[in-house]
Amino acid sequence: MDENEQRLFDSWKNNASSWTRAIRNQQIESRVLVTNSAILETVIELNPKTFLDVGCGEGWLCRELFSKGIDGWGVDASGELIEAARQEGDTRFLVSLYSDLTSHKFGDTVHFSCLICNFSILGQRDVAYIASAGHSLLKKQGKIIVQTLHPIIACGDAAYTSGWRETAWHLIGNETFHPAPWYFRTVESWIEEFHARNYRLLKLREPCHLVTNKPISIIFVFEQQ
Amino acid sequence: MDENEQRLFDSWKNNASSWTRAIRNQQIESRVLVTNSAILETVIELNPKTFLDVGCGEGWLCRELFSKGIDGWGVDASGELIEAARQEGDTRFLVSLYSDLTSHKFGDTVHFSCLICNFSILGQRDVAYIASAGHSLLKKQGKIIVQTLHPIIACGDAAYTSGWRETAWHLIGNETFHPAPWYFRTVESWIEEFHARNYRLLKLREPCHLVTNKPISIIFVFEQQ
Repeated sequence: MDENEQRLFDSWKNNASSWTRAIRNQQIESRVLVTNSAILETVIELNPKTFLDVGCGEGWLCRELFSKGIDGWGVDASGELIEAARQEGDTRFLVSLYSDLTSHKFGDTVHFSCLICNFSILGQRDVAYIASAGHSLLKKQGKIIVQTLHPIIACGDAAYTSGWRETAWHLIGNETFHPAPWYFRTVESWIEEFHARNYRLLKLREPCHLVTNKPISIIFVFEQQ
Repeated sequence: MDENEQRLFDSWKNNASSWTRAIRNQQIESRVLVTNSAILETVIELNPKTFLDVGCGEGWLCRELFSKGIDGWGVDASGELIEAARQEGDTRFLVSLYSDLTSHKFGDTVHFSCLICNFSILGQRDVAYIASAGHSLLKKQGKIIVQTLHPIIACGDAAYTSGWRETAWHLIGNETFHPAPWYFRTVESWIEEFHARNYRLLKLREPCHLVTNKPISIIFVFEQQ
């Protein structure tokens, strides 16, 4: 890991318990009102048999999909978050760095219908790790589904170019946060990086805030070629 | 044509001579500084043998491509603009509604490498007409290249949803303009509309303003499936 990646990794270690509380107490309004249902709908529309939730955090999305009868696994680099996920009763959660995704056994599942990355691609090399893992872990024409902050909105006043950024987060809901760097990508870059690795955009969605009517996130569905 | 399309058509009739002057006198800064070279680079990168410039206006882009030895034709619904284009000396310009693109003979060219729509998809049904024409006029795996205002920037204060809008334009450079309605599309809609018609996004670019460092336009390259 380089320095930014190490700081990112460490911050999630520090934030694990406050993040788990923020999610479980529904403290992040944009998630509760818009982006949770947007990712769920996008996944369900694809009618997957199996999924791997990459960067599953405390596991809410896995549990939603399990409850709809879709089999899958959640992985996260944070042992604390996987611990919190397992405490809800299901064992289909594993600790893994994104660079190690292909070194695990996921029960009887060898190839997944889709990988899901819900606000979980935060580092520079994550796209490369996940795209590469997809070529081993996905069925033919499998999908990678990515939700992230809408780049044009998330860009703020800075120049619209891909690169590491410092986050200003110190609070989420009532929870104190340990800030972390994150790697900003333009819409152009997101698509280019996956296309360069033998995926092709199948669908793009721009979930909008219900009050401002402006997009707050973007969802890419890439298909393995 | 419905009422909006008729008003759009009429406004270009009214604007033809002032538009021709505005382009030829380089009065539109964003074009001179950014978007003209962005569309040219995108086309040239694809190394096309032939092109059809759909909504070519007074013909500057055709002339640039002709001068690089690429054969092609320009079409525009405005007889006045095609007249202005021909006055520069080349005869490869034709008047055509977008709904009639397949009813013309383009010299010896039967199938084009690409269709180019540079800020020229302004009506609601234009995408359907052009996508449909592409299936007759394009070579196998031919491309449709679209440049338009970046939806998130062009959206302004209105809700981010596709629909007809009134333009506020009354001046371009030193020229008086007759305002026209135009059909706004989100990034999601642009991609969805072409994907629904058997094209697939190959590349997306977001040319940025050199001073603000924010995207001012977006370029989609769709490939026929």
